[in-house]
This record gives sequence, C-alpha cells and structure tokens, in this order.
Amino acid sequence: MSPKHSVGAVSPQKARFAEPIRLAGGFELPGYDLVYETYGTLNGDHSNAVLVCHALSGSHHVAGYYADNPKNVGWWDNLVGPGKPLDTDKFFVVGVNNLGGCFGSTGPMSLNPATSKPYGAEFPVATVEDWVETQARLADLLGIEQWAAVLGGSLGGMQALQWTLAYPDRVRHALIIASAPKLTAQNIAFNEVARQSILSDPDFHGGNYYDHGVVPARGLRLARMVGHITYLSDDQMGEKFGRQLREGVLKYSYDVDFEIESYLRHQGDKFAGFFDANTYLLTTKALDYFDPAREYDGDLKAALARARANFLLVSFTTDWRFAPERSREMVYALLHNGRNVSYGEIDCNAGHDSFLLTDPQYHGVMRTYFQGIKV
Amino acid sequence: MSPKHSVGAVSPQKARFAEPIRLAGGFELPGYDLVYETYGTLNGDHSNAVLVCHALSGSHHVAGYYADNPKNVGWWDNLVGPGKPLDTDKFFVVGVNNLGGCFGSTGPMSLNPATSKPYGAEFPVATVEDWVETQARLADLLGIEQWAAVLGGSLGGMQALQWTLAYPDRVRHALIIASAPKLTAQNIAFNEVARQSILSDPDFHGGNYYDHGVVPARGLRLARMVGHITYLSDDQMGEKFGRQLREGVLKYSYDVDFEIESYLRHQGDKFAGFFDANTYLLTTKALDYFDPAREYDGDLKAALARARANFLLVSFTTDWRFAPERSREMVYALLHNGRNVSYGEIDCNAGHDSFLLTDPQYHGVMRTYFQGIKV
Repeated sequence: MSPKHSVGAVSPQKARFAEPIRLAGGFELPGYDLVYETYGTLNGDHSNAVLVCHALSGSHHVAGYYADNPKNVGWWDNLVGPGKPLDTDKFFVVGVNNLGGCFGSTGPMSLNPATSKPYGAEFPVATVEDWVETQARLADLLGIEQWAAVLGGSLGGMQALQWTLAYPDRVRHALIIASAPKLTAQNIAFNEVARQSILSDPDFHGGNYYDHGVVPARGLRLARMVGHITYLSDDQMGEKFGRQLREGVLKYSYDVDFEIESYLRHQGDKFAGFFDANTYLLTTKALDYFDPAREYDGDLKAALARARANFLLVSFTTDWRFAPERSREMVYALLHNGRNVSYGEIDCNAGHDSFLLTDPQYHGVMRTYFQGIKV
Repeated sequence: MSPKHSVGAVSPQKARFAEPIRLAGGFELPGYDLVYETYGTLNGDHSNAVLVCHALSGSHHVAGYYADNPKNVGWWDNLVGPGKPLDTDKFFVVGVNNLGGCFGSTGPMSLNPATSKPYGAEFPVATVEDWVETQARLADLLGIEQWAAVLGGSLGGMQALQWTLAYPDRVRHALIIASAPKLTAQNIAFNEVARQSILSDPDFHGGNYYDHGVVPARGLRLARMVGHITYLSDDQMGEKFGRQLREGVLKYSYDVDFEIESYLRHQGDKFAGFFDANTYLLTTKALDYFDPAREYDGDLKAALARARANFLLVSFTTDWRFAPERSREMVYALLHNGRNVSYGEIDCNAGHDSFLLTDPQYHGVMRTYFQGIKV
C-alpha cells in the first residue's frame, strides 16, 4: 500500500472517565481511562463518525503508524485510510482499546486507586455490554450523538451488534464481520483450554503476577497456540505448511520437526511477549458470555427486535471458528424483524483470520457498503 | 451388555523379548516387555487370530474386566466378546500395550538396565513401524504366522495399515476405522500444543520427573483437554452441553460457568491421574510421523501397492479429526491397486470418538465383515 493511502503517523489519546461504572458482574470501577485513536475529520453535523471495535488481541491502533515506530502499523490498516474501503476522506474513524485491555485503557495492569497496586485478580470480568457502555461514554465525550457505522470482526462484530441493541438510535449501520450471535460449546471449550493454560501456569500467582515480577508466559503462549489453530483454516494450513519439515529430516525427538510446529511456537512466543494474561482471560469470558438471546429463551429473533440500524454481515467459507451458518442465523433473525440487511459470504481460504486480510471480494463488499452510507 | 456377552474376567500377560531392537530413530533398546491380553481360543491351525491395535490413550485391555476391579472394563468391550461383532466364540483376539506405553509394556517409566533408573527422557520416540515390528515378534511368540485380521481405530488403524505394508503375507484382513494415511498440518498443530503443554510444565523436568517425585499433571491435563475437543464433534458438544450453565448463573469469574468447561476439566484431571506424560509425547510423535507415502513422493497409491490384505475401512460423518475424506483417500489408493476393499461411511454424531461407541450401523458393518472372514 503506497503511503498516500495511509492515514500516516497517528497518536493515541487518552480519555478519563471520573464517573464510576457498574459492570455486568456487579463490580463497580471508580473511574477509568480509555485510550483511543481517530482518523479523518469529524464533519460539521457529526454525521460521519465510525467506530471500529477490536477483537481478542486487537487495540485502538486500527490504522496508520507511530512516528517513533513506523513498523507498528494499525491492525486494520488495509481497510481504513484515504481511498480505502473505510475511506477516511469521508469518515471520521475512531478506534478504542476496550476496558480491561492492556494497551493503555484501564485494565488488570492498571493501578487500583484503593490499593495503589495493579488490579490483577481484582479487575472485574468485563462483558461486551460493558464495553459498549464505555464506548457510548466515549462517544458522548467526542460529541458523537449517532455513529454513521459501528463495525468489527469476530468479537468486534459482537460489539457492533450489541450497539444496535443497547443504543438503537445511536447507530445507523452495523457491520458484523466473521462473527456469531453467541459461542458454541466447542468455541467455549477452546477458550477454556486457553484459560486453563494461563490459570495453571505457576507464574500466574492467582492473577497477581505483577507483584512477583513475572508473567505467565508459558500459559499465554499455549493459549495463543491453541487459539491460532482456530483462526486458520485446515485448508490454508495444509497449503501453507502441509507436512513440510523444518530441517528436511525427522528428528526423533521433541524438537521441531514440521514447519507448522515452528510457526505455532513463534506465534505463541511473540504473543506472550506483549499481551497481558489477565486481559486474555477476561476477554475470553466476554466472548463466552455474549448471548443477546439469553434473556429471550434463546430466541434470537426476539432478541434482535429492538435493533433499528441497517446491517452488513460478512462471513468466510473456510472460517470454522465462526462459520457462515453463524452469520446466517443473524441475517435470518434481522430479516425476520424487517431490517435492511446486506450479507456477503466470501470464498476465502484463510479461515477466521480472513477478516483481517485484503481479499478483493471482501474489500469490494466493504467499499461498496461504506460508499452507500450517507453522511 | 449382559455378562454372557462379556469375555469375563481377564488377566494381562507379559512377554519378555531379550533380543535388542533398533528403532526408527536409530536408538537401540537392549530388550523389552510387552503386556498383552487374549480372548477366545486359538484354533488348531492358528487361522483365527485377530490383533487389536490401540490408539493414543488405549492399552492391551481391550475386553472383559479384572476380577479385582470389575469396573475396569476393556476399552473396546462393546465390540469384542462372545456374540459381539468381533466374536470371541470364533476368533482368538489379542490386545497389546505398545512399546513406549505406560500400562506395563516397556516405556519411559520402565527402569533402564544401563542406569537402573527410569528411562524418562532417554526413552526413544517409537513409530508406528516400530510398533508393528514388536507386534510381529509377539505374534511369533504366540505361534501366529498370519493374522486373520488386524484392526484398530484412529492411531490403531494406522498400525493395521502398516501391518499390510510391513508384513503383506501375515495379515488376511485389515480393518482401519476412523483413521488417516497421515496427519494434516492442523492435526500436527493440535499435537504440538499438547506436547508444548507437557514440555513447558515446570514439573516435567526435561522428562525425568520420576526422579523428582512429581508428574507434569498440569501439562498432561491441558494436553488431554485440547485433545478431547478434537475427539468430539461440534454438533455433539452442542447437543450434549450447548451453553448450559453449571450452576444456573454466570459467575463473572474464572470458575466454571458452563457445563462444557466442567466436563473438559474433569476429563483432563482424570487423564492426568493415570497416564504417563512421556508416553503421551512419544505417541503424538508416532502419529505425526506416520506417512507411508513419504518414501513415494507423497504417492499413496504407490505406497500401498505392496499390500495383499483385504480391507474394511470405516469413517464417521462428524469426525473432523480424521474426516471421511481421509478414509476415502485410502480406499481410492487401495482400489487403484486392485485390493478387495469394503468401506462404510457411518452417519454418527459423536465425531472421532464414534469408533468407540455402539452405533448400530457401525457395529452392523463390523459384525458382517467379521462374519465373512474364513478361519
């Protein structure tokens, strides 16, 4: 991508919320910070604002790069920028690090004002509903009464959906990419393995590892490894790695034999070097808990009845974490409620992670949809 | 199952092999024991012998129970017994614990005669080819020149296939159930997560945990949890557990919320209580390494050309670990070579573990096939 299509050098900002917030689990936070970035310019009537919600390992750094670290490019930079599908010449785009995150927003690593020590295990489990609540407060602060669009992939898509339910009048379009209306038992099972990896790491110290000068890197590494398997498709793994040997011979030991092993170890090590384990735990719980139909006896049609937004849903054929069927459930329930719904099922071999890639068909759908949004 | 259909109380036996064996990785074992069980009676011309090969967590205890522990029923007791699909009134059935196992055959827990300490990390990685070699020596010892049939599910099926390649004249029928001719990158990836769980457990002590009076239970528990997800189908997990809460309410903590979490933890804990971590490691490597087409530039048809047996292959529609496509590859390659092949694709919702269940269609196929074997 040529620099002219980049939003360029960006700087995160921090918003302080002094008013306490009661989270879904009943725990009250006395106040909190949210770190965010913005790209493009808010227009006069504030009708061009778009919120990008992040998934498990994402952050507020959606697009552009940091002047002091040009290689740190935003996680959705291929989608967001001048002339890109989410065009910052038209839209004012906001990325925010969710509450409980580990990239600057208040989370388990932050100091608990009551103890002057990191929250650690004391930090509450936050839910998708909680995140949307804090994002709404950020919108208030930024003077955004109504989002032109809220979007996200995977867990980010759940937040976009939740926006249409919690604040039906504050979002005109919701773009829900590679997502699901709730996790299956198998989805929860994978999350539970990840959590148990972290919780059973002796360096976890019940969540208060900050006090011990260690991090549960072994557990976080395993959590990421197992997660990574679910982000890729079987097909793509086969094409990319197959049974290719790392060094041409079988080792007859527990060293790396196959390329796929090396790749997974690398992914795990890299992740364990920058992500906070407590944030990982609480984020997997937010995923597990999300289920807008819970209060409606599992009836998704009833749960989505109060949405007023227009919708674009996108799924990917090889995504076995949140398969197309999961998007179709939402499309069906929204159509049942007479909503204006567009849906694209994209033939891409990259599994769940397709939503982060520059697939022409996928980006064509996104571009077209954003072009149709009036501001 | 009424007792009259059980082989009844059984006793394991131990065979001592004093002759050294060189394993695939080049390591030589000076000698070894194999623990085995037999059911039924070997006929006069020794033409009714059937070998049952076990999978990752199985053993020689295939059928019947132990007099001092009647609840310890063999892992394929629903298939093997008088009047059962593999009818012990007709066949003489042998179950053997593989070399490197942890149920009595020589393995990492056994004393290394050179050091008088457990082998631990010194125990070599054994392969499917090695296992078949040792099983052939057991056959010699038992006076079985040719098996009427060799069978197994999953990794056990790989051994049955390997028998037809290593000893084409010593096996008349091979029954390969829920198996694959080699692992995919995704299969290897799951095994690697399991291995890393064990290898990174501080109680693993480089494989010599026996000396420290501990076992890497955390790692083994995680390995089993992730494995278990791949044994069950998404459908079955949904039907059996769905999003059912363990105690009716969300906890907003990292305790068990959902039934599936409780189930997985239980499976992990149970397994970590009886299985040896080093055996788990080497068995996953045997799975990863198996690939009879490796020496034939990946051409399975060429690799299977030397087989002389008749075949029954069975796969299960919801098995995503070794999907039906993987069985079809073998069926195709065997048909290409003019082999007599029967194939059943069974509509069973239990995923990979279906091969252990009493599905009527599946057991019907097995019964019919065994009835057709002349002895």
